[in-house]
Amino acid sequence: MSEVNHTKTVRVALAGCGVVGSELVRALHVQGPRIEMELGVRFQLERVLVRRIERPRTVAFAPGVLTADLDAFLATEADVFVEAIGGLEPAQRIARAALSKGRPFVTANKVLIAAEGEDLCSLARARGVDAHFEAAVAGGVPVVRVVREYLCRGPIRRIRGILNGTCNFVLTLLERGERLEDAIAEAQRRGFAEADPARDLDGRDAADKLAILAWLAFGVSPRSLALRRRGILPDAERLSRGASAAGGRLRLIAECEAFAECEADGEVVSASVEPIVLASESPFARTVGEENRIAIDAGWPWPIELAGPGAGGVPTAAALLADLIQATTSRAAFAPHVAFAALPTADHASNHVDLRVHAWLIGVRAGLVREARSRFADAGIAAALAGATIGDGWLITAPVSWSCIAPVLRSLEADGARPAVARLETEELRVVEEPLPLIAVAVGG
Amino acid sequence: MSEVNHTKTVRVALAGCGVVGSELVRALHVQGPRIEMELGVRFQLERVLVRRIERPRTVAFAPGVLTADLDAFLATEADVFVEAIGGLEPAQRIARAALSKGRPFVTANKVLIAAEGEDLCSLARARGVDAHFEAAVAGGVPVVRVVREYLCRGPIRRIRGILNGTCNFVLTLLERGERLEDAIAEAQRRGFAEADPARDLDGRDAADKLAILAWLAFGVSPRSLALRRRGILPDAERLSRGASAAGGRLRLIAECEAFAECEADGEVVSASVEPIVLASESPFARTVGEENRIAIDAGWPWPIELAGPGAGGVPTAAALLADLIQATTSRAAFAPHVAFAALPTADHASNHVDLRVHAWLIGVRAGLVREARSRFADAGIAAALAGATIGDGWLITAPVSWSCIAPVLRSLEADGARPAVARLETEELRVVEEPLPLIAVAVGG
Repeated sequence: MSEVNHTKTVRVALAGCGVVGSELVRALHVQGPRIEMELGVRFQLERVLVRRIERPRTVAFAPGVLTADLDAFLATEADVFVEAIGGLEPAQRIARAALSKGRPFVTANKVLIAAEGEDLCSLARARGVDAHFEAAVAGGVPVVRVVREYLCRGPIRRIRGILNGTCNFVLTLLERGERLEDAIAEAQRRGFAEADPARDLDGRDAADKLAILAWLAFGVSPRSLALRRRGILPDAERLSRGASAAGGRLRLIAECEAFAECEADGEVVSASVEPIVLASESPFARTVGEENRIAIDAGWPWPIELAGPGAGGVPTAAALLADLIQATTSRAAFAPHVAFAALPTADHASNHVDLRVHAWLIGVRAGLVREARSRFADAGIAAALAGATIGDGWLITAPVSWSCIAPVLRSLEADGARPAVARLETEELRVVEEPLPLIAVAVGG
Repeated sequence: MSEVNHTKTVRVALAGCGVVGSELVRALHVQGPRIEMELGVRFQLERVLVRRIERPRTVAFAPGVLTADLDAFLATEADVFVEAIGGLEPAQRIARAALSKGRPFVTANKVLIAAEGEDLCSLARARGVDAHFEAAVAGGVPVVRVVREYLCRGPIRRIRGILNGTCNFVLTLLERGERLEDAIAEAQRRGFAEADPARDLDGRDAADKLAILAWLAFGVSPRSLALRRRGILPDAERLSRGASAAGGRLRLIAECEAFAECEADGEVVSASVEPIVLASESPFARTVGEENRIAIDAGWPWPIELAGPGAGGVPTAAALLADLIQATTSRAAFAPHVAFAALPTADHASNHVDLRVHAWLIGVRAGLVREARSRFADAGIAAALAGATIGDGWLITAPVSWSCIAPVLRSLEADGARPAVARLETEELRVVEEPLPLIAVAVGG
């Protein structure tokens, strides 16, 4: 093959040197010689923004590279800016400063892209560069590329995924009998979970990532996406036990879909993040630990499936490096979404999600099973008993919409029944005709 | 979002209007308005090369677009050339003509890229354009992009896949009890299989695709890749039955891997395409019909998994369209592989594959089971009986290399035992201690 005659030096400014940032530094160091030889590009770390310069680090820097001064960082003469801090500020300020100077911007920040991605991409286009955010969704799984560049959203009908590795890691440990707090502590020990893991477990993190995918797939502004969100909190352990009792596995599933609401309106987009009980043999149920999985329905006989590590410093840093290479070796980054034929997402779209018909797995305290069952019956909803565990009775409703069960759930809640709810998506159910003896005793007592 | 001010017209010359080509024409027609609005690109079919102009077609063309004259086609004033004919000629002539004129070349042709991809990419680079071949591997599954651009081969250790949809479709029907000839006829009826499906079933097609992936992953020239290849012919039905009898499922698995042969030599690449008996619950065993699946080991806790339709006109045309958009909307296509740090693949690499240790499932005529077992024993190889079916006895060897069992197989072959062989990769084995009664009678008779 032909040799590279000239090496181009690309000056990189990196904001953040935590779990992900330090792995990017390491990858640039280890893979640098090969990248230089093959691509003719030498990445040179010009400046790295950190919170505390004196903190001990596992990677070494040339003198003067580390800075804790944001203004000095923003003034860096760099060819590309990479952000691996997370959160809205100062990430947004860094992004706007970089793009305004006509420098490509690479980020792992889903909060930033879900909130400001549309504006940042507009700013980037106006300056002839691009904002790259492969690492912001599903860690090392290249779903952003596949949706944005490969499918170019032409034939996409639905995207469904496990998008939060921490939550999935926790659910996997719960299935093995661990307690929630131990599972969270283990996720933190491994560097997946945030210091406050609530965003992982209540579905906000998955919702941000889903909003980004819905934007790329359907043109819906991520800020205006109406999304139904329920996480696995507060009753993650109960829900997980109930899913097992019903013969399935609990997963936090994010999905978005374009559908025709009525002929006159054309298509609208619906989106949801919620716990779903899946058949144990389904690919999503078999996704364990911090793995992420995405299925894209393009109207073909099979969906396009993508899976891989959804968290962790090394895979996320690999996604940043891929974007860094794309941003600097292509003369122009691929920026297809010049003007979206955006599908609307209005209240009626989210209502539509609520009106869809599903079976539901509902857990109540064992002593309230009969009462709960009769309240569902009064609302016209048949509810069979699922396999039960001590302390909780589990009911499976006939297929009805969320709007139908919500009032019954509220009335049970008011009476202290603490109902736990997950959507059901499995036919492998352990349904029993009559209350199990233990429950019968409790109810009859 | 901002509007597109100018529409650029891109003149397309398309060679081939069969199953894939006609779906590309249809996709350009259906998705054209959206692509024009969003990307500012209007694709205009300038010329379409067909074998017979007068043949009835499901898509309509403007007068003068269709031609059966190769020279006229080559002389077309087009901005990009797309090839969907297949086979080496005239595809190669079209590729060289297009690239020599500095026009991007887009193809679905694995035979062409496996044989000439390296030269074509060199020619492309010299002219400042690129050759695009996403559709050449795994149909609608974007594995070429993921290996070439996303992973940029930095951390890849191993790629393993089901890369031939026709073969997998046939294996799935065999599992359901259909006969080989009926399964092949059904694959042809659905438009997957070639008129001569031998390339699908004997592993040559998968080997071409694997050679392309190994090239992108490890820099090994596809022409010089030493590859061990065994297909499912001639005894596909027997092998499939034997896999079931042993408690697994048969799949044709293509894999390539970089490994350190010894410290002094550095890394070399090994590659194989062969039938493997997998545990029924494994993702590859659960890949049915014409679905393709690829797992890429990048040294992370989980492989990157990609799956989707590996054959069929619509998905393959979608891959062509994605490349067409990439070739014409990026000012420069992504062409990372300027100079490969290619890993060697020599005879010793293929020998190394042969020296690896696996268990093997070996079927012989029922009357020869005892004899076969004793010949393996003479060669120092323990062979237990697997669950057996009428007409065949199935043996499972202790883990040994191919080089160890090959002489025994040859000696059995010479005695008319017609041994059928697959690698074993499952612990879900039905191993029996003694010959089943039917076999015992046959052997004792």
